Formats: sequence, C-alpha cells, structure tokens
Amino acid sequence: MNNRIVYMDYNATTPLHPLVKEFMVRELDTYANASSMHELGRQARSAIEDARAKVGMLIGEDSATNTLIFTSGGSESNNTVFATMFHIGRNNKRNKIITTAIEHPCVLNAAKWLEAEGFPVHFLSVDAYGKIDFNELESVLDDSTLLVSVMTANNEIGTIQDIARVVELAKAKGALVHTDATQAAGKIPVNVKALGVDYATLSCHKIYGPKGIGALYIKKGSPIEPLIRGGHQEYGYRAGTYNNLGILGFGEAARLAKENLQTYQSKMSALRNKLRDGIEQKVPLIHINGHRTDVLPNTLNVSFPGAEGESILLYLDLAGIEVSTGSACASGSLDPSHVLLATGLGPELAHGSIRFSLGMYNTEDDVDYVLNELPPIIERLRSMSTVKAEDIAQTLQGVK
Amino acid sequence: MNNRIVYMDYNATTPLHPLVKEFMVRELDTYANASSMHELGRQARSAIEDARAKVGMLIGEDSATNTLIFTSGGSESNNTVFATMFHIGRNNKRNKIITTAIEHPCVLNAAKWLEAEGFPVHFLSVDAYGKIDFNELESVLDDSTLLVSVMTANNEIGTIQDIARVVELAKAKGALVHTDATQAAGKIPVNVKALGVDYATLSCHKIYGPKGIGALYIKKGSPIEPLIRGGHQEYGYRAGTYNNLGILGFGEAARLAKENLQTYQSKMSALRNKLRDGIEQKVPLIHINGHRTDVLPNTLNVSFPGAEGESILLYLDLAGIEVSTGSACASGSLDPSHVLLATGLGPELAHGSIRFSLGMYNTEDDVDYVLNELPPIIERLRSMSTVKAEDIAQTLQGVK
Repeated sequence: MNNRIVYMDYNATTPLHPLVKEFMVRELDTYANASSMHELGRQARSAIEDARAKVGMLIGEDSATNTLIFTSGGSESNNTVFATMFHIGRNNKRNKIITTAIEHPCVLNAAKWLEAEGFPVHFLSVDAYGKIDFNELESVLDDSTLLVSVMTANNEIGTIQDIARVVELAKAKGALVHTDATQAAGKIPVNVKALGVDYATLSCHKIYGPKGIGALYIKKGSPIEPLIRGGHQEYGYRAGTYNNLGILGFGEAARLAKENLQTYQSKMSALRNKLRDGIEQKVPLIHINGHRTDVLPNTLNVSFPGAEGESILLYLDLAGIEVSTGSACASGSLDPSHVLLATGLGPELAHGSIRFSLGMYNTEDDVDYVLNELPPIIERLRSMSTVKAEDIAQTLQGVK
Repeated sequence: MNNRIVYMDYNATTPLHPLVKEFMVRELDTYANASSMHELGRQARSAIEDARAKVGMLIGEDSATNTLIFTSGGSESNNTVFATMFHIGRNNKRNKIITTAIEHPCVLNAAKWLEAEGFPVHFLSVDAYGKIDFNELESVLDDSTLLVSVMTANNEIGTIQDIARVVELAKAKGALVHTDATQAAGKIPVNVKALGVDYATLSCHKIYGPKGIGALYIKKGSPIEPLIRGGHQEYGYRAGTYNNLGILGFGEAARLAKENLQTYQSKMSALRNKLRDGIEQKVPLIHINGHRTDVLPNTLNVSFPGAEGESILLYLDLAGIEVSTGSACASGSLDPSHVLLATGLGPELAHGSIRFSLGMYNTEDDVDYVLNELPPIIERLRSMSTVKAEDIAQTLQGVK
C-alpha cells in the first residue's frame, strides 16, 4: 500500500496557508458579534474592516469600504448578481443576459433560471482553446443587454479571457459587466478598477484560506439587491452575523496571495510545464485542453483517448495522486464536462480527461512521481478498452 | 481601569465550546473538497454526513439525510424559505403570508419584500409578554394562506411560542409552517418531527459553535427552491463548496448542546433568576420584559425608565459588562426595539431597555458583580435625565 499523497486538485480547494491557519487559531477565541456595540463587538468590527481592505487590495480596489461585501462563497456572490438582474430586468426592456457556455455551474444555473423566467439569455460559444469569440459578443450585444457575465479564468481548463475587451464592448452598449474571478484572483493579477467591471466574484478557499467565505466586488453606483435580507450588515447588501473567523482568514489569505503572486506564478508555471511536457513525452495520443499561453499557471487539463476519466482518477487515487475529472461542483454527475464539450471535444474525449491543478505544496518530486505513475495506468486502461485510442485521437484533427 | 470582562450577550453570539474549538483546530488541516471523488474528498464527505446526523438529532430528526441542509447561517435559512414562497406563491391564489411583529429582522424584511411583491402579509400582534394571540391567528388563517412563520423563541425577550398549536391551526387550513428556532435550539427542547413544522431554521454560533454556518430543516416532501443555485451540493437545494470546518464545528456543537441541555437549562435559569430577583430588589421602578415562565432560561430583558439604553450599555461596557440593547442585528440603528414596541412599551421605555443573555461561562460571581455595578449606573443616569423615572413608570400600569 502506497502512503504517499500528491494533491493536485488545488482548483477544487486548497489547504490553509500555514500563516492563515496560525491567524485563525489565534482568532478562535475571539467571539464577539461584530454588530454588537460593546468593546468586544467594536474590536471584532475593526478586525473585519482590516480584512476587507486586504481583500480589496488583492483585486486593485484600495478603498474597499462600500464596494466589497463578504458572502458565504463564490456561489452566493454569483447568485447575488443574477438575483439583482432578476429584480432589475423582469419589468424592463433591457433584460438580455449574455454569458458563456463554460461558466461555473452556479453562473450557468442562475442564467438558466433567468431564461426560465423569460429573460433572453445568450451563452457565448468558445473556440478549441476555450476563448470566447468577440465577433459573436459584438453581434449579440445591443441596447437591450442588461448584463454580460464572463469568467476571468476557467476552473477546468484554466483559459483566461480578455475581460478588459468584454468591458469595452459591453459598456459601449450600456450593459453591466460581471466577472467570476474565483479561479483567477491570487493566481494572476486581477484589477477590478482598471478593468472597469461592475461586479467581481471572489472565493477564499481557492487561495489557501477557509471555506464558507467569499466576496462580491460591487463598483460604486452599480445596482445591487440583497439575496439575503435582514440585518444592516454589509451596507444592507447582505444580512447575517459576520463570520469573523472566515472573514479574518480571508483577509490574511488575500494579503499573502498578493504578496506571493509573482513567486507563485513562476513556481506554478515551471511545475505545470514540466508536468505537461513530461506527459506529452511519455504518453502517446493525448490532447492538451485549454489555451497554451492565456492559461492559469497552475492548471493542466489533458484528454487521454481510449481511457475513461473516472477510471484514471481511481487508479491515480490508489497511487495517492488526487486529481479530478473536471469541476468538483459538477462531479458525481455522469455527464461529460460542459466546458470540454464547448471546446469541441466529443463526449468520449471529454469523458477521458483529467484536470491537474497544482499548488504551493507541490514539488518537482511530485511531478516526477506523477510522470512515473500515470503512463502505465493509461496504458493499462487503454489495453482494456473496447475503443482504440487511435480512432478517437483521429477526431482531434478536427479540434486542433 | 477595570480589567474584568463579564460577557452577558450570549444571544448575540457565543464563544466556541472548548471541545468544539479542539475539534476545529484538528480539522484545520483537513482541506479536501467534499464534492471531490478522490479519497480525501470522500473522507471529507463522510465527516459532513456525521455532522448532519448530529445536528438533526438536536432537533429530533434522527435521519437528517435529505431533510437538513447546511447554509451560511440563520439569515440565509430564513431567506431560503421566503424565496421559496415567492416562487410558489406569486402566480397562485394561495399566497397569504402570516408571521409575527416580533420576528428577527431577516424574517421581517423577507416578509416585507413579499408584501412589496404584492403578497398579502399579516404580522400577528403580541401581548405584553410577547405571546401571539391564537384568536388572531385563527381569524386571519384561511384557505389562501401559504405560510405561517412564527419564531420558536424571541431573541430579545426570550418569550417562547406554542409552535405545536400554530402547526395545528395552520395545517387545518393546508398552510405550510416555518419556525425560526435560531434562539431556541440548544436552549430548550426542540423537536421538529413532533411539532410537524415544514421548515425550521438553525444557527450554529448561538450554541457555542462557529459563525457563518447554519441549517434549514425541510420536512420530507415540503417544497423548497434553492436560494443559491449551482452545483449539486445539499441535494440540489443549496449550491456552494461545503464549508467543512463550519459544518464539522456545527455537528460537534449540536452534539454537546443536546448532551448538556438539562444541565444548561437548570444552570441558566438559576443564574438568570438570581440576576432578575437582584435587579428587582436593588433597582426601583423597573419593568421586566418577556414572559415569566415561557421564556428562554438564559434571557432577561429589563426596562429602566428614565435611563437611556445606549448610555446604560456604555457605562456597563466601561465596567467590563457586555450586554446589548436588543438584537445585535438591529443595533447601530437609533430606532427603538420593534419587539418591545410590539409588546406595548412606549418608545421611551423601549429605548431604556437592556438584554442580559447568559451563557455557559457565567458564574454566580458574575451575577453579583453585575448586581453591584448596575444600580449606581442607573441611579446616576436617572439623576441626569430630564424625564422622571416615575412619570415613565406610570405608563407601565397600562402594560402590565
């Protein structure tokens, strides 16, 4: 039995940064309600405002008061934006929603909800590398467009979109712009002020902070409707007792992510490239998904024709290698990845794909270990398969 | 300078139980995404199901699978119920909402939102002790009633409602029943199965667990619409990456709350009664708010005519005594407590009220300390006041 664990599923979630953990352990004894008016309450409140400033600075918003609210995570932030569109758009001629076919399930499902409510919703297609087509965006953008929501970087294949260009085109038509920056913030520079987006979604547990906490950036003056009504917390945009521990952990994680961004990027891209090059060298007939250069530094998505993703995952798991077949939020479902299908992969290929997402604890040695364990697994699975890798790989000609 | 801190604001929030803290510190190293399919993910998932069972058992739901979902807290749980009513009721003749005038702001504001959406909403009045009037409930209940939402126990005055009777009357008209049990669970026995409610709201940070985590009980078969759409988590009723740390802390806190319930109740009521009797003895012209017997064992709300609540709070704070003037979620506002106004207190009296909410770390010595510090503060404030305590106290004749 192998006892080594190589975790390469950092896009699903991350362990706590040791300094975030230290910070949280200290904070476990701070228990006041930050809305209370006594001394303990005021102290808790002041710590929350420090954390808000730190999270703001990670995304280029240096005065986050009034523009950054804490939520329970990326899904809540995204849903808050779409619920706001519901309230604004349902009795309004400006009600068209434009998003992409490769968004996270929470954006896709919120958009589908608006569609069921009678909103015109357009899902932009993407090319083989996961990039949206600006001609298509221009052709569907018009004066009835209420919101354009495009993720900064994709969780499954890592492709980065040109959000500045999205904003430029959308703003020319008076539309609001949202970007789900859950996977981007802390991995690549994100500057909401420079981009000019109205809304940006952040999640803490992707950047070595705790789960159950996220944030929504709301540009000053952009409309917002609370998803959770009640107390006066968060400028009335989001009710509920402050999650001190989560918020403080988020502040510390954001501070560290900003401080370490350059080191992170160079370390991650070196490891990822070593992994990618090694797989390309050692495993025949594979297909790398996602963009080659406009891609998150830590993400590698590979299709292995003739091998089934869940089986690859199982064998890697037995070898202590923790990866995923796509988004954790979509796992458990037998459907092939909607992201890979959108890039033009057939269901067989999409089913045979693995996401390696690297992080701060990975080493060159980990990559070597994967490069040692993976090839025989693929070989074994291919030998057991009724479909030939070559036959499926042929279909890739049309993709590449 | 006094360094002693006597925290008596446990209805606002509680410190972590030492065993919950220990549990959480151990869990800070567990980081897998509970939706991931690899070994670490499966382990995380299994721990979450254990926690779900423990929370279920606190409220008499011994098989919580499918009937108890984790949320980010009480406000989200309550809003989920009201958002569900919006979806069910807006194109339906059965759309009347009945709730009470003394609910938590998140229920009140969610109800007011439905009212603004055109739903008929009735806010039940309460008597001088904070009890609803069942004749009034019967008179407004009819075949068009969609939901009756009555809190199990009030956060400010501690009054406990007869939810079994609410269910009996509401079910006779085919209405759904929700109870916000945020302040009740862990302080008094709550059994959702025996009560027959459709929905019950729970919060973790009121029972010596972490903030940012709550739950919603949904009776098998009762309608529910997700507030946060996205991934498949929580049976599709609530998307978002599992907040492992919060959920596990909740499980442990719920287990301890159930185990310690009887001890808690007898200890709290003894301390609370000592505090109440001492104040009645030492401070003239006061008024105890809330019911004398159907009341949370830890809660004491007192009006001090001729003294202003914020000033009392300030002086007590300087003496290291942490209390509140009402709900932390409503503090920061200059309006008098809506709960006290609903019990018939005039604005002057409502403004001069203090909530003492006791908890596991309070001792007899703490109570003695408060009984020592409080009377001269009230005396000083009354001597500075332009209104005479006697004049205001006279208005109490009408209340009692």
